[in-house]
Formats: sequence, C-alpha cells, structure tokens
Amino acid sequence: MPDKLFDSSDNVRHANPLRHVQSVVLDGVLKLELGGELSGVTVAYETYGQLNAAQDNAVLVCHAISGDSHVARHNDEDDPGWWDIVVGPGKPVDTNRFFVICPNLLGGCRGTTGPGSTNPATGKPYGRSFPTVTIGDMVEVQRRLLEHLGIRRLLAIIGGSVGGHQALTWATRHPDWVRGVIPIATSPRLTSQSLAFDVVGRNAILRDPHFHGGQYYDKPHGPDVGLAIARMIGHITYLSREAMTEKFDANRLQPHDVAVQFEKKFSVGSYLGYQGAKFVERFDANSYLTLSLAMDLFDLGSTPEQLAAAFRNARCRWLVISFSGDWLFPPDQSHDIVRALLANQAAVSYSNIQSDCGHDAFLLPDNLAAYGEMIRAFLDNLSAVPSASVAPDEPQNPTSIFHQRRLDYDRITELIPPGASVLDLGCGSGRLLARLKEKNHRRLMGVELDEKKILASLRHNLDVVQANLNQGLRAFAGQQFDCIVLSQTLQAVFDVEAVINEMLRVGRTGIVSFPNFAYHKLRRMLAEHGRAPRSAGVLHYEWYDTPNIRFLTIADFDDFCRCKNIHVHRRIALDTEAGVEISQDPNLNADLAIFVISREVQGTPSPG
Amino acid sequence: MPDKLFDSSDNVRHANPLRHVQSVVLDGVLKLELGGELSGVTVAYETYGQLNAAQDNAVLVCHAISGDSHVARHNDEDDPGWWDIVVGPGKPVDTNRFFVICPNLLGGCRGTTGPGSTNPATGKPYGRSFPTVTIGDMVEVQRRLLEHLGIRRLLAIIGGSVGGHQALTWATRHPDWVRGVIPIATSPRLTSQSLAFDVVGRNAILRDPHFHGGQYYDKPHGPDVGLAIARMIGHITYLSREAMTEKFDANRLQPHDVAVQFEKKFSVGSYLGYQGAKFVERFDANSYLTLSLAMDLFDLGSTPEQLAAAFRNARCRWLVISFSGDWLFPPDQSHDIVRALLANQAAVSYSNIQSDCGHDAFLLPDNLAAYGEMIRAFLDNLSAVPSASVAPDEPQNPTSIFHQRRLDYDRITELIPPGASVLDLGCGSGRLLARLKEKNHRRLMGVELDEKKILASLRHNLDVVQANLNQGLRAFAGQQFDCIVLSQTLQAVFDVEAVINEMLRVGRTGIVSFPNFAYHKLRRMLAEHGRAPRSAGVLHYEWYDTPNIRFLTIADFDDFCRCKNIHVHRRIALDTEAGVEISQDPNLNADLAIFVISREVQGTPSPG
Repeated sequence: MPDKLFDSSDNVRHANPLRHVQSVVLDGVLKLELGGELSGVTVAYETYGQLNAAQDNAVLVCHAISGDSHVARHNDEDDPGWWDIVVGPGKPVDTNRFFVICPNLLGGCRGTTGPGSTNPATGKPYGRSFPTVTIGDMVEVQRRLLEHLGIRRLLAIIGGSVGGHQALTWATRHPDWVRGVIPIATSPRLTSQSLAFDVVGRNAILRDPHFHGGQYYDKPHGPDVGLAIARMIGHITYLSREAMTEKFDANRLQPHDVAVQFEKKFSVGSYLGYQGAKFVERFDANSYLTLSLAMDLFDLGSTPEQLAAAFRNARCRWLVISFSGDWLFPPDQSHDIVRALLANQAAVSYSNIQSDCGHDAFLLPDNLAAYGEMIRAFLDNLSAVPSASVAPDEPQNPTSIFHQRRLDYDRITELIPPGASVLDLGCGSGRLLARLKEKNHRRLMGVELDEKKILASLRHNLDVVQANLNQGLRAFAGQQFDCIVLSQTLQAVFDVEAVINEMLRVGRTGIVSFPNFAYHKLRRMLAEHGRAPRSAGVLHYEWYDTPNIRFLTIADFDDFCRCKNIHVHRRIALDTEAGVEISQDPNLNADLAIFVISREVQGTPSPG
Repeated sequence: MPDKLFDSSDNVRHANPLRHVQSVVLDGVLKLELGGELSGVTVAYETYGQLNAAQDNAVLVCHAISGDSHVARHNDEDDPGWWDIVVGPGKPVDTNRFFVICPNLLGGCRGTTGPGSTNPATGKPYGRSFPTVTIGDMVEVQRRLLEHLGIRRLLAIIGGSVGGHQALTWATRHPDWVRGVIPIATSPRLTSQSLAFDVVGRNAILRDPHFHGGQYYDKPHGPDVGLAIARMIGHITYLSREAMTEKFDANRLQPHDVAVQFEKKFSVGSYLGYQGAKFVERFDANSYLTLSLAMDLFDLGSTPEQLAAAFRNARCRWLVISFSGDWLFPPDQSHDIVRALLANQAAVSYSNIQSDCGHDAFLLPDNLAAYGEMIRAFLDNLSAVPSASVAPDEPQNPTSIFHQRRLDYDRITELIPPGASVLDLGCGSGRLLARLKEKNHRRLMGVELDEKKILASLRHNLDVVQANLNQGLRAFAGQQFDCIVLSQTLQAVFDVEAVINEMLRVGRTGIVSFPNFAYHKLRRMLAEHGRAPRSAGVLHYEWYDTPNIRFLTIADFDDFCRCKNIHVHRRIALDTEAGVEISQDPNLNADLAIFVISREVQGTPSPG
C-alpha cells in the first residue's frame, strides 16, 4: 500500500520545525476575557516575503487547532508547511508580493505561551492552572505581535476552521485594522454535533488516569491514550464519508503494520492509530483542551438578528468560502455569515466549493483551482493590482437566444437610474455589472451558481454570492437593492413565482428580461409545422435538452403580473435579430421582452 | 428543562427488565464461523402473541447493538420496550395477529451467553477469551432457538441497524425459513466512516487501564470510562446534525446538572455524560467489543457483482427501508441492497423515508406514519390477509390532462403481451399495475418517488421501489423487464434523453404516453391568442406552476426516436375528450400519444 495513506496536509511534520520560528515576549499584562491575566506572553511566529514601504501588503494567516506558525516552507531546503499549496512565491497568497505573518496560537504548544509554559508565579508549568482563553484573547495577542512588528493595518486576514473564528473576531473587533477577510470552512459558532465531538475528546483526555489533573509534565507520560482518542475522533470529522470510502474501502482488511498499541484489524484502524500516536508526539494534551474549549466557546450568535448585530462594526471586504462536503463546519453556517454581512451592507463574495474532501478540503489540492484562485483574485482586488490576465468574457450564455450583441444589456443599463444599487441574478462572469461599474453605481453585486463564473466575476473585481435561484435568495434581507435584474433566466427556473417574489422582496424594482414565445417565428413552428417552439433555436437546443423549461409570452407575463398584484412600470419589446424596439403588436413581433416591475406602485427610484 | 432531553427510544430502561424473559440452554456445541466453539449456549428471549395452529404467523425481531429481548411491553404494567411504537396489539407488527419472538444476541449481556458468562472450562467469566462471533453465529443461535420453540418457518424477520444485518443473513443463509424480510436502516457492510467510529470506541475500552485484559469482573470496576466514551461517540452517530441542533442549540450553555464525572460545560455535554454513565450501569464492555466487532466484520461485499452473488439464494419477499437523514447507515447502502435483490429478480419494495432524525429514526415516532404503515401493509401482504381498508384510488395524477377515465390505461393494458413482466415508472398508487395484476402477469413492479403513493401501492399488494426518474434507474440492471411503461410523465422530467435511455436499458420494450402539444386547441392558444399552450389546461395549471416542463409534439417525438436510433413499433394517437383513436393527421387532432419503442428492431415480445 502506498505511504500516502498516511499523508494529510494537516499532518505533514518537519524534522526541524523551529528553524525559521521567531519569537517575542510581549510587554505588559494580558487581561483575559473570561477573567485572569497572563504576563510575559511569548509569541512564536514566522514571516514570509517583505513588508513594503507603504506597509500595506501584510497578510495574517491564522492556523487551525493542530497547526502552527510554519504555514509554508521558507526555501527549497525547508520542511513542508501546512499550507504550502496556498502560501509561497507565485502561490495564491504570493509571498513575492505580500508580507505574510503566521503566529502560533495563545494556549498552543509550538512556541507561544500555553499550558506547558512555565508559570512565572510558581516556576512550574501551568498545566490546568492555565486560564481559559478565548478566540478574542488569541486575537489580542496577534494584534500586539503586529504592533511589535510595526504593522498597524493588514491587507487581509485568512483563516480556515478555528483560524476562521480568529479572522471573524479580527474583523468585528478591530475593523480599522483590516481591509479584507477570508474566512474559510468556518462558522459563527460550532454546531452542537461538532461541539459534541469536542466534548468526547476532552472527556477522553480528562478521564485518562495519566492526566493527573493536568500536572503530568514531570511524569513518565501524560494522557497519551486520551489525546490519541481525541485526535482519532478529530480525524474522522475532518474527512468526509466519501473520502474515507475512497481511502479505506478497497483494502478494508489489510491494515498497515504500524507500531502502535491500538486496534489494527482494519485499514482505517491502522490509519487512526497511527494518526493518534503521532499526534501525541507533537502536541500537548493541555493545549488541546485549551484550544478546543476556546473554539467551543466562540459564539457570534445563532439567530439572524444576533449575527447581523455581531457584524455591525465590520468594515472590510469579504470572501467567504465553504466546502459542500464539510460536515464539521457545514456550508449553511458560512451562508449564515454571508447573510449577516449582507444585512450590514458589507461587500461580500461567497462560494460553496463543490468538494468531497470534507472539512480538510481547504488544506488539500483537490479544489485548489477554485478556492485558491478565488483567494488570489480577492487579494488582487484588495491590493488594487490589476490581475495579470483578466479572463475573457464568458462564452455566450447558453440560455440566450442571441448571437453576439446583448441588446438587452444596452436597454437594461439605460433603465437603471444613476447611482442605484443593483443585484444581478445569474450574473455570469459579471458582464452587465462590469458595464454598470463604469457608470459609478454605489453598490453592485451578483448572484451566480457556477463556481467558474464566480471566479471570473471576482477577477472583474465584483462581489458575487453563490446561490441557486430555485432555492430563493435566503442570504438577502428585504429591500436591500434599488434594482434587481433577472436577465434571460426566468424561462430556466422551475418555481417562477417564488423567484419573482424573492426578487421583489430583495429589490425595490425588478428588471426582468425573457424570450417571448409568442414571437411569430415560434408561433409558426407550432401552428404550421406542428413542432415545439425552439426557445433557443439559434443555439440548436431541442425540446428535450433545452435548459428552458418555462414557456411564456409577453401576454402571459402581463397576466401573471396583474394576477399577482405586481406593478408593471415599463414594457420594452425588442426584435433582437433586427436590433430594433417593437411598438406594434409586441406579443407577435418581439422575440425579447424587458419588464420593469415592483411589488407596489412607487415613486422612487423612477426606473427608466 | 424537560426530562425528555434524556429520553431516547434506544435507552428507555426498565425497572425489572427480566420479568418476562424466558431462556433456554441449547443442546450440543455451537461451531463458530471464525473458529472455536461454544457449548451450553443460553438464549434469552421474549415472545408476544400466540403461534397459530398453522404455525405460519411467527415474526422474528432482531435487536440492535445495545438492545435486548424486551422489544415491547407485555401488558400495561410492564416496563417500556425499545420498540413499543411498532410492536404490540394493533401496532404495525400486530401481536394480536402475529407471534413475535425477540432473542437477545449471542455475545450480549442481557441473558444470552456472552463474554460475561461463565466459561464452563474454567469456572470463570470468559472475558477476552470469549471467541470472536459473527452475525452468522448469532443467526445460528436464533435458528436453534426457533427449532426449540417448534418453529420451522417464519412469516417475517424484521431488524434495524445490526438487526438488519441479522435479517440479511437469515434471508441469504436460510432461504427456506423465511417468507418476508424487512431490513431497516442497514447495509451490506459498514462504511469506512462508521467502522472508524467503532474502532475509536473499542480503542477507548481496550486502552482503559481498568480493562485488565478483559478480566475485570472481579475488580471494583471495569473500563467504565472507555465504555462511556464509546457510548458517547455512538450517540452522536445515532442522531443527525439537525436533530442535535434542535435538541441542544437553544440551551447550549445550560447543561443539566447530572451526577457524572464528565465535562458538563454544554447542554450536549451533560447529555453525552449522562448517556455514557447510564450505559455503563447496564452494559458489559466485553459484550460491546464483541458485538461491535461482529457488526464491523459483517460484509456481503462492496461491488454490485459481489452483492448480487450474496443474495443469489434468497427467495423471500422484501421491504427495504432507509432514512434520508441516516449518516451511519446511509440510504445509498440500502439502495445497494435493493439493486442486488433486483439483480436476482427478487420481489422487493423500497422506500427512503424523508427524515431528519438520523439513524435513530427507526426507533422514533416522527416518521412512524410512513415506515410503520409500510411494515403493516407488507406483513398484511405476506399473511395474505386482505387489508382492513384498502386506500381509494389516488386523486387524479396532477400532470394528467384528463378528467376521469384513463383511456391511455385501457390502451396500454391492451398493448402489453400476456404474461409479460412490467415495470411502471411513476406508478402512483399502482392503478395500472393493479389492472395488469388481474391479467396474471408474471412480474409487476412500480417505481415511484412519493412516500404516500408507495404506501398506497404496498396496500395494493404491489412491489414498488422508490426512485427519482431524473436520477436514473440505478437500482435496475439491463433488460430486467419485458415492458417498461412511462405513462404521462415524460413531459415532467428534466433529462428526457437520459430517462428514455434508462427505460430502454432496463426494459426490452418501452411504452411511452405523453400529451401532444401540437393538438389543435393548444396550437390555437399560441398562434391565435399568443398564449403559452396550457399543457394541463383542464387542471388550470399556468405556465409558471405546471409540473410539465417539456413541450413536445407527436412529430417531435418521432424525430427524437429517428435521431436516437430508437425503433418505433406502434404509434397510437387519441383524442381523449372524444374518447376515440385518431388516424387522420394525429399531430393536429390527437391530444395524447402512445408510442411503443425499443432500442433495436426485435421480434419478441411482440408488442400489441
């Protein structure tokens, strides 16, 4: 069996991990959030790249529970870092351009003060007398470290898992410090299920007879079994069921012969035993208790209102990333963060990356082309450096009935009042929004389902939130935008009424364009030839494979609006082949319609 | 906080659990599958109801890992059983009609011989010298018990989780013994993820210093912490994330004050601590090791070929039930069982019950109206007792363009050759299949998505497998049926070509009926009135809410078949309003078409 069974980005360890670690003893006393204080706190950290003269290229990377300051290798001879795929020269977090700082966490055991450090008051290790620390305390230590380094503002903070908790805390507590935040695979607080796994892990440590109330440092060994058990549980939760099936199912009864005293009947057992035993060699059980409790106590609230309040002070730009296969920090929780940010009018992009890799996805190369490039584009936008290569416009929208020119975009652009805030549903790679940007609109945002198009939008320096229109606009509160655009998408959604309702909930005015199936050429297809009207005939879709599943005419949509008490402000009918507006019998002569609608008759903003 | 926080069907314990337990010492020696033997095996069991004179009403209930013989209360004064909601007078497993036997498992600790029993060779408890037993060994003990009770054939075997493993083993090893099997929330073998949780739990027990190599029976206490840790892990896996959120999120920081020595910072922690401690009082750690290892070793294979071979000998009728929110025994694994059964031409029904309750769903009342009634209907069918109340025919199929009379059914029934095997896709409550049944067809089966309709089909004594046509017919192998019917459903599926391909893969001949959108009335709607043809006008669907999303004409479908190399054997065109067959210009004059198709020109069965 290949040795890669035992490789996990989270676990690549280094022969001499401390080679590039710097450390500093902070001045003064650290008052802790939950009471108590620490003095003489040491912070271990590593840096990469150079702080520029303007001091505006600093990026803070926050590690997860078992990580440390060694985020990446410093040179070819160096030991691997835990995030080499993301941080380094030419990588998404490009150390040729950015000054990257990665400190070890307060309470940890890799150089920063933690329970294994000597308590100056007793001359002995703190052990269980180490106070309960919070994510806020960890962030305060990081802030003091940055001040020590002469940094007063960060370009960005990036963190996954509990690293994401730190990033969220930075953004909400120190809004002046940070221009952009990338929380990855994280949450406003743990689910009760995830909390439960942590509780079991801590119980395994606390009830290990070798725990000795936490003062095991002078004993032959500590609560090694308990810590290994906690780590085994952790490993299961970091992977997905699919990933474990792929890794272990084929050789289920052929375990590795690893030199550990755990059950080795199954291949997955030898893996867990190995991971558990290895963790004990490099991690301190008291630190594990301290860090996991800090993570479990992190809580920005659970209701939409609490979360909106929690993010009220944040002023940075956001890129929120989750992974579809992550069940420890499930995507819904990232979605909650996005909703709270949107409620505060924040500039936020969000993508839920399709992945089978579980929580570990953010440490693995499998989905790097998506999330890594999103990170790169976001940092580019923050640093106002034009991207090396802006992607060309996307290929023709597959549901379009048009060849090249988007006559509808011309008209929609004219219809939107100057300065209006705009949400474009199904924004693609952001062509319409990019046009509006030139008109200096105050708030522009897109909604898109496709990961690649989201990345393209990010490369256009746009904010775009991933959502499936058929599931509504749950991330958005009511009346958040002046105009909401649904351009040639209505005919491809299943629940038309729900989508229109969502539009008119989130936007004061809706602009809807759709192909008119009563266009004379389409009528003829059915009436004379007895064939289904080909909604996208020029693209050669057939009745059985077209993405268009709703067939409406201008007259039908008029009826719909009347019936649903939707006010129609404008109707524009186009013959896009001729490139002209149609005034005479539009339901017969137009192949495309644009409606400006709202829930009620209203004065402002006056559309068109 | 309500005490129900700590209630779980899996854990209702009884003050005097042994009151109704009977036991028998089996004659002879039990040779074990993996080597070794046991003599003088005691089996503890409970029975409910009466064995009838024909001895054909015996139902075996197999319990899960922490269950026992007390499946239900014997009378009002009795302690609760672990499945009172399903087993009892008038319940789905009606003890007024059936003779129910529930034995405690070999290797357990509730009366049947297990590691805590005295080893006759040493006069001491077996402890770790108790041999490794398999699910097959457990079933053999059950079989000998039944023989002792004078039973030679079972009406049915029901089991959830590892109880399902026993049921599967019975059906495959002792096909003559059983008429019907109901495996619930089970699998052909554990996923690697589920296996991993078991491994961690066993490690916690084995490495507990109080384990003493398994000989802890004469010590003040055993590996209580390890067993409690294993139980805590188990409890997390029995619940779903959603269920835990609902149970614990609101009061996350208000733990119960339970008298246990585990962490009690969070409400979920107090729950787990309580469950862990309570389990130690009633369960033996060596039994837990024995039973969980038997479960982990259970393996019917992982490939479709291995599974098909595993079920080759089975001859019973099947009702397979899974729960959508079960991540310990995920529905895909039940689906694998169904596929293997279908590959063997078994009579099988399957439903994946929509549920947020996790693996525990089969023990909880939340979804009882679905799975309980399916069990009842299946047992009714097995025992050939007509149901007390056969459900009336379902309301009109919502995608139908017809009022009452199903003229298409008349014609389809005529088209199917006598004796042909038939699969009806989207069978509803089985009206068409029920008609065919009267014609004595040799194999009839339905596919349906809706749980309620599946139940209605079961009540018609039909076999029906739950599936979403848009996801294909993955459970079915190629050419399993002579005729496959897709009646007025084509226009409501998204991926038309895939569905037709699946039809013609699974059936030798396909019979497809669909509304003709070139019917003159529909043409006029678009041509003259400029309105979207109302595909289901008589039911008052609108363009924006109709389930019909594909608009095809007879000419279109003809083209489609030509283009995709599908042979058309028959075209029947109907005017269903007039109730007549149309021969002249059917694409104009028919509102419904029936096509008989196959992948290639073929001789048999000659349709029509």
